[in-house]
Amino acid sequence: MQEKKIISTNRLEAFSDGVISIIITIMVFDLKLHEIPTSTTVLIELQFMLPKFISYMISFVMLAVMWINHHQLFHQIKHTDSKLLWLNLHLLFWMSIIPFSTNFIGANPLIWQSSFFYGIVFFLNAFAFMILRDYVVVNKLMHNTISRNSQKKGIQKNKFAMTLYLISSIASYISVYISFVIFLIVPLLYLNPEEIKHEDDDEFI
Amino acid sequence: MQEKKIISTNRLEAFSDGVISIIITIMVFDLKLHEIPTSTTVLIELQFMLPKFISYMISFVMLAVMWINHHQLFHQIKHTDSKLLWLNLHLLFWMSIIPFSTNFIGANPLIWQSSFFYGIVFFLNAFAFMILRDYVVVNKLMHNTISRNSQKKGIQKNKFAMTLYLISSIASYISVYISFVIFLIVPLLYLNPEEIKHEDDDEFI
Amino acid sequence: MQEKKIISTNRLEAFSDGVISIIITIMVFDLKLHEIPTSTTVLIELQFMLPKFISYMISFVMLAVMWINHHQLFHQIKHTDSKLLWLNLHLLFWMSIIPFSTNFIGANPLIWQSSFFYGIVFFLNAFAFMILRDYVVVNKLMHNTISRNSQKKGIQKNKFAMTLYLISSIASYISVYISFVIFLIVPLLYLNPEEIKHEDDDEFI
Amino acid sequence: MQEKKIISTNRLEAFSDGVISIIITIMVFDLKLHEIPTSTTVLIELQFMLPKFISYMISFVMLAVMWINHHQLFHQIKHTDSKLLWLNLHLLFWMSIIPFSTNFIGANPLIWQSSFFYGIVFFLNAFAFMILRDYVVVNKLMHNTISRNSQKKGIQKNKFAMTLYLISSIASYISVYISFVIFLIVPLLYLNPEEIKHEDDDEFI
Repeated sequence: MQEKKIISTNRLEAFSDGVISIIITIMVFDLKLHEIPTSTTVLIELQFMLPKFISYMISFVMLAVMWINHHQLFHQIKHTDSKLLWLNLHLLFWMSIIPFSTNFIGANPLIWQSSFFYGIVFFLNAFAFMILRDYVVVNKLMHNTISRNSQKKGIQKNKFAMTLYLISSIASYISVYISFVIFLIVPLLYLNPEEIKHEDDDEFI
Repeated sequence: MQEKKIISTNRLEAFSDGVISIIITIMVFDLKLHEIPTSTTVLIELQFMLPKFISYMISFVMLAVMWINHHQLFHQIKHTDSKLLWLNLHLLFWMSIIPFSTNFIGANPLIWQSSFFYGIVFFLNAFAFMILRDYVVVNKLMHNTISRNSQKKGIQKNKFAMTLYLISSIASYISVYISFVIFLIVPLLYLNPEEIKHEDDDEFI
Repeated sequence: MQEKKIISTNRLEAFSDGVISIIITIMVFDLKLHEIPTSTTVLIELQFMLPKFISYMISFVMLAVMWINHHQLFHQIKHTDSKLLWLNLHLLFWMSIIPFSTNFIGANPLIWQSSFFYGIVFFLNAFAFMILRDYVVVNKLMHNTISRNSQKKGIQKNKFAMTLYLISSIASYISVYISFVIFLIVPLLYLNPEEIKHEDDDEFI
Repeated sequence: MQEKKIISTNRLEAFSDGVISIIITIMVFDLKLHEIPTSTTVLIELQFMLPKFISYMISFVMLAVMWINHHQLFHQIKHTDSKLLWLNLHLLFWMSIIPFSTNFIGANPLIWQSSFFYGIVFFLNAFAFMILRDYVVVNKLMHNTISRNSQKKGIQKNKFAMTLYLISSIASYISVYISFVIFLIVPLLYLNPEEIKHEDDDEFI
């Protein structure tokens, strides 16, 4: 009984780490020169790169944040099951779309559709993360010692990020600059990695 | 004698995991904008992306299914040998062609040749998986405790998937939509990862 | 208390290794033929590749040097904390820009702007490495047995590399060939990987 | 004294495995459609792919062979040193050029220059492998129990492959088809992974 019949937490995490590290790196490949620069066109070339560079930077930070949170979540998981496996693959799928939305907003950052799309993709990522986390908490897949309080906080923070991304998407129709500000705010909320708290750290509830 | 003289199961699995995680992620790189979108062309750009996006999604799920099955298979293997090594590399080779066939069907999904090709590549993958699995079973490379019944079922399911892909390829000549339906059905068969069953789980045969 | 609440040194190192191995390999993808070569154009094609090839070689060596040093640094670290995590991601970010600057200098190596940019990116990498190393030393995150002398030497060498890259960037305005020479010198300084020295190896200070 | 001061064999192998798995997979990205196929152009598109596909297949097999041999070699190594580290990075560098030479021969397989170049790159790979293996043997970095006889055989086989690749390069000037045949022969020599033989397996010499 002791031996789990499906993929181990470690394996799942290693595979996820592999996929995330590729996603985070592959984006840099869209930082491409439009054409061979000469001394007269080089400044225009670099100017052309600027929005691409900034959107790459934001996506890099967001993916880093997701990687840290993903790791922290799986560190608390006792065992996996078939549904967890697919919820994790579902999350990886939406993470893998980030390079595309980054390219999209980098190509023409000032039209509202690209901010809208960029926001929606992050919303879907936050959503995928939330249902993964929710599944873990509801089905008690975490180690018994993990604080229930901190689990609830994690889900609440997740829902907050989702809401912000939804707002940023809608706000892009009014002004893309509102969206940009929100894209910068969310990573800041996560700069401090979630700590893994154990039951005895809980206050009396 | 105890020490195996060729590559360990773990190593083989880690290398395969690496290759599979790259294949599954690299596909997203074909989700590329045709040209820089403006507010007037952006909808056409996104429409142009739609078949690419859907084919990426299907291939992502299929590769995820193959990764899970690959992992489950290797988890049951006691030791490797030279032929197993090459059968595994043979499988990885056909998996690595999936990004190309995905790009192909994404570029022009409505001509029958692209569905045909997409189906054939999956057929070859299922075939490569089948001969790998067959080799493992026939040569008794699995742990002794593994249920023979579940081994047989694995091969049968594999042959079923092969048949479906062959049908989808041929059917594409009649209507690509028949192929599309089959491409959606096969992953569903595998949503529940194969469980590793031990001898004492076998019914009397 | 024993159990650390954030990402382990091992995990951080494995993720960094993954990202670095992708960065170092992905650069080769810019070694692309301009167009299909014929027997008459093939020499021009290869000539066109030469600066790209050389810049790839230099970047490959520099990234290899950084990988070795990164590994040596983390090997000495006792435990991580939240700031270390972000300082490491900051370093990975600037490493991930190297493929772009390599492509840039490979596309037109003789304009001073490309040498300037190439130098600046390496300067930022050396800087990111330096503040990471500094943080580790100042906050005593290293194993107690590690020689303080060798820690100081590491930081000094780091600052020296930073200075060289800054000089190479500025010198590019006078002649790109001065920059090229400096780009070749820095890796030579690091050919011998830093040894991990323990306290009892220290001379009396 | 027990603790080695430079990068461990395991780490070196894991990093190499990462780089090799990326190189082997990234090549598939050159299997790109020239333009969006229609039902009339699709056959021409696929025909255009054929040489690319074949050269990808050959390179895939060669890289697989090199991966297996690399693994077998490192499995026998007791400890690493600074020079071994760089000889290994030197080998990885030439392996990373294989995607470019594969793309080159795939783009125009019938001009002798592409076969020449393809052969030379493999020659350099075999050479890099040979000096790595030679260094290991000469400096007695292998476990004491490893058969000296099998070490010598490994080097001889390596030199034989080098010679064949050199011949294939030169022969391309006479006929590219001679080169093609040799490119197919070399992997066959290595289909059976080198076995790790221990001293007591040696015949009396």
